[in-house]
Amino acid sequence: MKLLKERILKEGKYIGNGILKVDGFVNHQVDPYLMNEAGKEFAKLFMNFSASKILTAEISGIAPAVSAGLHMGIPVVFARKHKPITMPDQVLLTLSPSHTKGRTVELIVSPEYLGPKERVLIIDDFLATGKTIEGLIRLARIAGAEVVGVGVLIEKTFEEGRDHLEELGMHVEALARIKSMSEDTITFERP
Amino acid sequence: MKLLKERILKEGKYIGNGILKVDGFVNHQVDPYLMNEAGKEFAKLFMNFSASKILTAEISGIAPAVSAGLHMGIPVVFARKHKPITMPDQVLLTLSPSHTKGRTVELIVSPEYLGPKERVLIIDDFLATGKTIEGLIRLARIAGAEVVGVGVLIEKTFEEGRDHLEELGMHVEALARIKSMSEDTITFERP
Repeated sequence: MKLLKERILKEGKYIGNGILKVDGFVNHQVDPYLMNEAGKEFAKLFMNFSASKILTAEISGIAPAVSAGLHMGIPVVFARKHKPITMPDQVLLTLSPSHTKGRTVELIVSPEYLGPKERVLIIDDFLATGKTIEGLIRLARIAGAEVVGVGVLIEKTFEEGRDHLEELGMHVEALARIKSMSEDTITFERP
Repeated sequence: MKLLKERILKEGKYIGNGILKVDGFVNHQVDPYLMNEAGKEFAKLFMNFSASKILTAEISGIAPAVSAGLHMGIPVVFARKHKPITMPDQVLLTLSPSHTKGRTVELIVSPEYLGPKERVLIIDDFLATGKTIEGLIRLARIAGAEVVGVGVLIEKTFEEGRDHLEELGMHVEALARIKSMSEDTITFERP
C-alpha cells in the first residue's frame, strides 16, 4: 500500500533492537485517514474469505481493525490484556510473549463474543515474530472458530513471523513489508 | 443519537455498582458502523470549534476517537497507560483514579504529539465521574494546548462528571445520556 509505505519512509524511525517507531501515525498518534484507507485495502484483500468477525489485540490493533470492520461490514473483537469487571468469570485466555515489552502478556476474550460458528480474520498493526498473532489464533481456535486469514499494516519480514503463521495454515497479507532497517534507511521487500 | 440509545436499550446491561456493560458494541466487541455514525455525529456537534487534534485515552476511547477524527479530518492521540519503549524519556504524565479498576492509572502523552498550538477535542467512551477526562484536560493544558470541548458516547448523568468539566470551562456533548439504571430499566435524560 503506497500511502503507508510513503508514510513509513517519511516518519518511521528505526530506534534499534529491530524496533520501528511509528508513533506519529499508528501507535500513539493515529492518522484516521490512513487507517481508513488501510481498512479499505484489507476489505479488498480479504473480500473472498467470508469472514464474519475481526479479532485483534488491544491497543494498537484497534484502529486498523475497526476500519477494516467498517469496510467489511462485520464486528471487531479486541482481546484484552487485563480482564475488566464487565467480563464473565469464565474467559478464553492465552499467554503471549511480548517482544517490545520484554515479558509475557495475557490475551483474554469473552466467550460471549467469539464462538464456534465464526470465521475470524485477524488484523493487527505489526507482524514481527508473530507471537501475538499466534496467541490470537489459539484463542479463536479454543473458541471453536475458524481463522480465515491474517492482515497486518506492517510486516518486518526479517523476523520471519510469516513462516510460523503459514505453518499454521494461515493466509497472510501485509500492507507494507520491511526487509531491513538501519538508522539511515528502511528497505521494503519488492512487491 | 437514536442508534446508540436503541443499542444501549437492546444490549446494554446494568451489572451493579453503577456499571453499564456495553461489551457487545463498545468495550470488547466494537460495532464499526455504530462507531462511524458516532464519529459523524461528533464531527457535526463540534464543527465550529476549530479543533486541530483529538485526544483520548486507551483503550475504549480509540474507536470513537478515530471515527470522529476521520470525519473531522484531524489526527488522534491516545494517552497511554504504560510508557512504551518508543516514547522519549521526558513525557507528559498525570495520575487518574479509575472507578472501574479501583486504582490509580497513569495517563501518558509524548510531547512530540501534543503541543502549545493545538486546539484539542477530547473524545471518550464514557463520562461518569469525569476523572479520566479531567486527567486528559490536565495533560493537554500541561502541554500548553487549548481544550475546546469534550465529546463522549455515553454519559451517566447521575455521576455528575459534567458539572466538574463545566467548572473547568468545558463544552460537553454526549450522544446518549443515562439518567438512571436498574436491572430491568435504563432511563435516558429527556433530550
